[in-house]
Amino acid sequence: MIVFQQQLVHETRGRGTYDLTAKIDELVGKSAVDVGQCTVFVQHTSASLILCENADPSVRADLERYFADLVEDGDPHFTHRSEGPDDMAAHLRSILTTNSLTLPVADGRCALGTWQGIYLWEHRTQHHRRRMIVTVIGRGRSED
Amino acid sequence: MIVFQQQLVHETRGRGTYDLTAKIDELVGKSAVDVGQCTVFVQHTSASLILCENADPSVRADLERYFADLVEDGDPHFTHRSEGPDDMAAHLRSILTTNSLTLPVADGRCALGTWQGIYLWEHRTQHHRRRMIVTVIGRGRSED
Amino acid sequence: MIVFQQQLVHETRGRGTYDLTAKIDELVGKSAVDVGQCTVFVQHTSASLILCENADPSVRADLERYFADLVEDGDPHFTHRSEGPDDMAAHLRSILTTNSLTLPVADGRCALGTWQGIYLWEHRTQHHRRRMIVTVIGRGRSED
Repeated sequence: MIVFQQQLVHETRGRGTYDLTAKIDELVGKSAVDVGQCTVFVQHTSASLILCENADPSVRADLERYFADLVEDGDPHFTHRSEGPDDMAAHLRSILTTNSLTLPVADGRCALGTWQGIYLWEHRTQHHRRRMIVTVIGRGRSED
Repeated sequence: MIVFQQQLVHETRGRGTYDLTAKIDELVGKSAVDVGQCTVFVQHTSASLILCENADPSVRADLERYFADLVEDGDPHFTHRSEGPDDMAAHLRSILTTNSLTLPVADGRCALGTWQGIYLWEHRTQHHRRRMIVTVIGRGRSED
Repeated sequence: MIVFQQQLVHETRGRGTYDLTAKIDELVGKSAVDVGQCTVFVQHTSASLILCENADPSVRADLERYFADLVEDGDPHFTHRSEGPDDMAAHLRSILTTNSLTLPVADGRCALGTWQGIYLWEHRTQHHRRRMIVTVIGRGRSED
C-alpha cells in the first residue's frame, strides 16, 4: 500500500476557475499508485474545488454569473463585512460547493470522465495564494 | 489491506433520482472489506450523487421541484445552450450537489443511517447511460 | 497501514452549527495515523457537515440567515410535511451542503487551514442526537 501526500500551491488572479487537472494527474503519476483514490483538499474557506465541463468555456462563464446572482456580494443582510463585500459571499459560495474532491485512481491516473476537469474556484475578487493538500492512497504498480 | 475497484453503469430514463443503495452494498460485500470506506464517483458533469431520505418518495418529488426553481431550465442568462435548455441547468445542479460520495464501511457493509439511501441524480431530461466508479479501501475480514 | 474507525455522537440543541474540530483531532490522534486521510460521515439526512471560518461567529450567523432565505421552512410547495415545517427544508439544506468531509491527515493531525473549523450543522429546529462515523486510513508513525 502507498500513502502519498504533497502540498500544491496555486496563485490565483482573483475570482474565477483555474484548471488543476494536469497538475493533479502529475501528482497521481508521481505517487506510483495504480488503483486507489486521490483527495484534493483546499485549506481555505473562501475558495473551493469543483468538477466542471472542460470543453466549452461558456459553461464556467455561466457558472460565475449564476453564483453571482445566487449569493450577492455585499448583501445588506451580511454582518460579516470587515474584509469587503465579497468576503461573506465567498464563504457561502465555498459551502455551497466543496473544499475537497475524492477522485478514483485507475491504471495510475485520475479516472475522470471525458468532459470532467478539476478546477480551483477562487471566490475572492483579489488574487490569493491558495494552498491545497493532495493525498493519494492505494495499491502500487509492483503490488498488482 | 484491500483496494477494490469496479465500474458501475446505470441507464437512466431521464431527469430523476435512482436508488443505488443495494448495488453499492453488493459491491462492498464483493470487495471483502470489513472496515474502511467506499467512494462512489460519477464520471459526468450533468448527473450527481446524493444521500437522501429513503422512506417517503415525496421527499424526492419536493427535491426535484425545489431544484427546478433554484436552477431554471433555459434561463435566458445562459450562454451555453447548444445541447438544449436543460444542459447548463444540469451542470449547475451537479455542482450544487456532488460527483462523489465517501461512505464508511463497517462490518462489511455501508454504514448508512436508517433513513439514508444512495441516489444517482440524472439532471438531463433525456435518458443517459451513466458510468460510475466504486472504490473500496480497507481492512479485510481475515486481517482483523 | 492503519484503518481506524469510531462512532461519534453529538447531542444538538436544535438548528445551528456545532464545532467538532477538537473532537475530530482527538480521534485522529487516537488512530495513530501519521499521514493519510480522515472521513467524517453523518448518518442522517437532516443534518450535515461543513468546513467554515472559525474566527468570527458572525460568519455562522450570516450562514444561518442566508440558508433560511434560500430554503424556506414551511414552503407551501412542499408535500413532505408530516414532521413539521422544518423537515423538508432540513433535507434540502443537507443536500445543498454535504453528509461527509474527507480531510487530509499530516504529522498525525487534521491538516486544516488556519481559519477552517469542522462543524456539524443541525437543520432541524428541535434538539437531536446525531450519530457520525469517523474513519482514519493511512500510514502509522512507526511505519515511516
